[in-house]
Amino acid sequence: MRLSPSPDRLFPADPATRGLARGFYDAVKNAPILSPHGHVDPSILSDDVPFSDPADLLIVPDHYVLRLLHAHGIGLDRLGRGDSDAGAREIWREFAASWHLFAGTPVRFWFEDTLHSVFGLTEHPSSANADEQFDQISAWIAQPSSRPRALFDRFGIEVLATTDDPADTLTAHRALRDDAAFTGRVVPTFRPDRYMDPGNPNWTAALEALHAASGIECSTASGLVHALEDRRAFFQSLGATATDTGVVDAWATRLSSAELERIHRAGLDGSVSPREARAYRAHMLWELARMSSEDGLVMQLHPGVLRSHHRPTLDRFGPDSGHDLPLTTHYTEPLREVLNDFGTNETFRLVLFTVDETSFSRDLAPLAGFYPSVFVGAPWWFLDSPDGIRRFREAVTDSAGFYKTSGFIDDTRAYLSIPARHDVSRRMDAGWLATLVVTGRLGEEEAATIARDLVDGIPRHVFRL
Amino acid sequence: MRLSPSPDRLFPADPATRGLARGFYDAVKNAPILSPHGHVDPSILSDDVPFSDPADLLIVPDHYVLRLLHAHGIGLDRLGRGDSDAGAREIWREFAASWHLFAGTPVRFWFEDTLHSVFGLTEHPSSANADEQFDQISAWIAQPSSRPRALFDRFGIEVLATTDDPADTLTAHRALRDDAAFTGRVVPTFRPDRYMDPGNPNWTAALEALHAASGIECSTASGLVHALEDRRAFFQSLGATATDTGVVDAWATRLSSAELERIHRAGLDGSVSPREARAYRAHMLWELARMSSEDGLVMQLHPGVLRSHHRPTLDRFGPDSGHDLPLTTHYTEPLREVLNDFGTNETFRLVLFTVDETSFSRDLAPLAGFYPSVFVGAPWWFLDSPDGIRRFREAVTDSAGFYKTSGFIDDTRAYLSIPARHDVSRRMDAGWLATLVVTGRLGEEEAATIARDLVDGIPRHVFRL
Amino acid sequence: MRLSPSPDRLFPADPATRGLARGFYDAVKNAPILSPHGHVDPSILSDDVPFSDPADLLIVPDHYVLRLLHAHGIGLDRLGRGDSDAGAREIWREFAASWHLFAGTPVRFWFEDTLHSVFGLTEHPSSANADEQFDQISAWIAQPSSRPRALFDRFGIEVLATTDDPADTLTAHRALRDDAAFTGRVVPTFRPDRYMDPGNPNWTAALEALHAASGIECSTASGLVHALEDRRAFFQSLGATATDTGVVDAWATRLSSAELERIHRAGLDGSVSPREARAYRAHMLWELARMSSEDGLVMQLHPGVLRSHHRPTLDRFGPDSGHDLPLTTHYTEPLREVLNDFGTNETFRLVLFTVDETSFSRDLAPLAGFYPSVFVGAPWWFLDSPDGIRRFREAVTDSAGFYKTSGFIDDTRAYLSIPARHDVSRRMDAGWLATLVVTGRLGEEEAATIARDLVDGIPRHVFRL
Repeated sequence: MRLSPSPDRLFPADPATRGLARGFYDAVKNAPILSPHGHVDPSILSDDVPFSDPADLLIVPDHYVLRLLHAHGIGLDRLGRGDSDAGAREIWREFAASWHLFAGTPVRFWFEDTLHSVFGLTEHPSSANADEQFDQISAWIAQPSSRPRALFDRFGIEVLATTDDPADTLTAHRALRDDAAFTGRVVPTFRPDRYMDPGNPNWTAALEALHAASGIECSTASGLVHALEDRRAFFQSLGATATDTGVVDAWATRLSSAELERIHRAGLDGSVSPREARAYRAHMLWELARMSSEDGLVMQLHPGVLRSHHRPTLDRFGPDSGHDLPLTTHYTEPLREVLNDFGTNETFRLVLFTVDETSFSRDLAPLAGFYPSVFVGAPWWFLDSPDGIRRFREAVTDSAGFYKTSGFIDDTRAYLSIPARHDVSRRMDAGWLATLVVTGRLGEEEAATIARDLVDGIPRHVFRL
Repeated sequence: MRLSPSPDRLFPADPATRGLARGFYDAVKNAPILSPHGHVDPSILSDDVPFSDPADLLIVPDHYVLRLLHAHGIGLDRLGRGDSDAGAREIWREFAASWHLFAGTPVRFWFEDTLHSVFGLTEHPSSANADEQFDQISAWIAQPSSRPRALFDRFGIEVLATTDDPADTLTAHRALRDDAAFTGRVVPTFRPDRYMDPGNPNWTAALEALHAASGIECSTASGLVHALEDRRAFFQSLGATATDTGVVDAWATRLSSAELERIHRAGLDGSVSPREARAYRAHMLWELARMSSEDGLVMQLHPGVLRSHHRPTLDRFGPDSGHDLPLTTHYTEPLREVLNDFGTNETFRLVLFTVDETSFSRDLAPLAGFYPSVFVGAPWWFLDSPDGIRRFREAVTDSAGFYKTSGFIDDTRAYLSIPARHDVSRRMDAGWLATLVVTGRLGEEEAATIARDLVDGIPRHVFRL
Repeated sequence: MRLSPSPDRLFPADPATRGLARGFYDAVKNAPILSPHGHVDPSILSDDVPFSDPADLLIVPDHYVLRLLHAHGIGLDRLGRGDSDAGAREIWREFAASWHLFAGTPVRFWFEDTLHSVFGLTEHPSSANADEQFDQISAWIAQPSSRPRALFDRFGIEVLATTDDPADTLTAHRALRDDAAFTGRVVPTFRPDRYMDPGNPNWTAALEALHAASGIECSTASGLVHALEDRRAFFQSLGATATDTGVVDAWATRLSSAELERIHRAGLDGSVSPREARAYRAHMLWELARMSSEDGLVMQLHPGVLRSHHRPTLDRFGPDSGHDLPLTTHYTEPLREVLNDFGTNETFRLVLFTVDETSFSRDLAPLAGFYPSVFVGAPWWFLDSPDGIRRFREAVTDSAGFYKTSGFIDDTRAYLSIPARHDVSRRMDAGWLATLVVTGRLGEEEAATIARDLVDGIPRHVFRL
């Protein structure tokens, strides 16, 4: 099958609407990429060494890809995870033979774009061409123009935010800052998740790592808070403008200092109950909001994900192996205390993401439509697809308009997919704006302005870039 | 930017579908407006004095407008609320400068319609034309043909229902009834919310007001019930056909008489617990259904709104200041007792509204598709937008058809927006009917009949007008 | 009104998309019907006697039809249910007079198809033609070619699965197997619901029936489990490939053997608490998954239905009288234990259905997109409509693609509606595939392959036909 992505892909089918969408898209398709939230390893840019092979570049680290292969009975041990001894070529063959299983999914769409636009491939992957395409991609990898820094330029990335642990020394970020040969902007993001749950067996080790990084004793909750504040300042000194927090629910309610310290001690001596751990975590979420209201780091919140649903897979293959799953998620009551305390604070900024799309029209857009601090985060994990993006715009524009949404985030560790992901967003937003124009809800000139703001002014403002 | 709303606005983009939609719409666009649920102050009609100024007419009382301005950092004190000393012209300037923030929202759509159709303005508001448009609207206000009664005729309003407290003397309604010069129909709606929550600090004062209005002692629950029944009869004598109740959830379950009276006394002496207050409120909701099953006032229920989310704003600017927010809402289990008791009672009629659109296909349409008493309320607050209306029809038609939906309600205190709001509904329904015809699900002739029934026979039947 | 269903019905309005949809549909419209889940009485095929009359054929047993008539005040006693003495002709007249109430619903769509394609009627039912159409359908019934077996061939049914109680002797299935004159495939489905709830007053009688059928004593839980296993083997010997379970929620968690037996005894002596009954039922659901992981019967799960909401109707007219209602339903946490234990077992297969469409994108597609055993069930009860099917594809394709969905199930006891129901699915899937092609997300050739797989390879694989 010939691979030739349509220039009009993702635009609405109606010819008049499509014509408008094409116009809005053309004006932004080459705009610089602002990527304020993602998971690219910054050392690929500081070291700028070539990628290793097609499997390691495109398949092994991408749980979007692995999970659907796994769902069709291809074990992760055949896909390079855990104790797998599968070679890169074998992994690519598995993927190529399973190409049809991705039909209709965003993974397939991103891949087609990448295979065509980045590598110049002209056929859909298949068992028949697997070896040939593996070799073609391998040859591409070997070219100097395929190194990470060269792609940073080719992709037109202006800002790339990474996600980093508070105890991280940010060596790669410092190297990039000090490297005159690299003019891109790569900024860290403060992600303190592992310090928030005293019920987690790794919590004590995390506190020790943070103590080592900050020089601040974390044997008390107030010490931990102080150490986190210290590291936030350090992250800011290296360009961070935001934090990110993933939690199972959005409850953020304050504890008394005595109760907080009591639970902290119980966490250290291993006697903490699940209920106490939840209360501690809810307090820490409030505390993170308080910090953002003071230091101005934009607070990103991703609640509602149950991590590592399948214990046997976690035990054998580790986290991020494809079974983080969405839960029903609420925001309006859980965040009431935080928003009463900081919701109208001019320094505070809170971007709310969801994996439960029912919250778009019920919780997120109404909250963002009142609180100056709140913005509706772009569709994320499981929803960052063409239809997910369309439903997002249809659900949130009513109450929040365009200017209380966050702008697109790619949220990816798949470096090569970044342009394709942003392109999907630009195409879908162009189509949505065209629909508003054709249905008499927006003027053409104003729609063109909004299309530009969505890829530039809005993310720049929301993430304080 | 030139303001010239398209005559085809909101119709589907596909030309064949659009042509059909236009036909269905043309036949109903001038049909009389039946407004069975809204918040217009009836004294504007009984007194028929000119509106004061553009800000007070269009902005200050409309929390749809205020909330999005507030979300962009324009404090309510700059918008005429609370202790604001902002002048009308300054408020209009704030609004005009923020016009782009409303792009894509229904507020913007209603405004464009009103500015164009009512005032005859030909430009979008902007900072550049703010003073000029303020003057133009002010001049319009000063004309005799811009007075409330003249507009009642011009807008083609046949019935306008207001929302009124049971203790209200309905002076304006009586004046209108007795005024031979006014031939419109303005009816009160019985809204007993404030008598249902013994945990509310204003509850005792409310009981006293009701005692004063009814002459019936409310120091017992049975007295309160008796007083409410008495006032319902009074409302009916002035044309009321419906009640309205807004509650945080839809639970409606009966208490024993002893338990009810015990909680009533606890409410009076200030010792009621939140749990008791909830139980009391759930009983009272059951009681209101029981009353409707006897006197035939149509029961409207709006559950799932958390009122005044942001306490500091409530304290400074009062209720209805833009932070009433939707909650996840259920109906099937909470209303089971009421529906087992009255669901097949021929006198009983229950119109269920929602701010949680997931309930359209899961709860509301299935309930209305079995119980003769239940009707699915039109999309309301946060969902009364073009896309909200489309999703409503797509979600409820399967199980409830058209004839178990309520017909449109505008739910507004913004008098001038009434025609625009009804127009949105008529356009969207025309488009939905056209889609059904084009996709072979409905004949053209039958669709035309339904379009007319939706603006006439259906609301007349459901609300017993 | 003339009844002439459009050959292009349900295809998207856009002409280019419609053209593609027509092509995809044409290639599958006459494909054999695989019906892996339904409620047809197998004795109509083993006995092959003519249907009795139009009301009994089309209206009385179909709660889809009855419920909407009931919702408009036509009591079930006028529709042939309970102690009704309404004649067949009177029932048909009620239905014909209410034809407009079904406008826009899937019931109406199926009926139009059946009236036109099966009976050859050329007018919409109405009071004016009720008697004439009643006579026409009656004449049709009297023809030999209208008998159930002839229709089985005419409809192109290849496989028809029924739903059967574990204690059933499957007499009709055996008769069909042994009847050389019948070459169709009619297979039973194991539905053990009534053995799972020790709080149900009919539970003890159910255990006794199962004891009688299996010869295995059910006075202990382990005996019950053993008896169920025995009957599953019996069902498999008569061609069963699947089980089906309907539960109010999906919680499936194991009890200790001692606790299980204790609750079993409490059930027998009538002292079981609601909490214990729930725990027992959750254990039994886990147990059924365990059995499926061993014997390979595909496990179908339909959680989230509250049966017989209106007690007075249940008391007078029995179950399945139109007031089974959807509840908010969760899967990710409730099924975690089952999926940890059996989720990657190659023998285990679990098809998850829902009546809460919010779970499509949040729970079902993400689960099916990781677990090899899990498939997303086609839209069912309340959602098996054109728009429901469209929303299903839009919501699940992102995470699960096409090959982790189940293929269509008609779930009907209305034998004559089977072709119409499958036709809706084929049309909607053709339209969805055409949309993907027109928006550049899928190649035309690949889409055609998927259209065929959806009606053939996929259901054959998922249900092990």
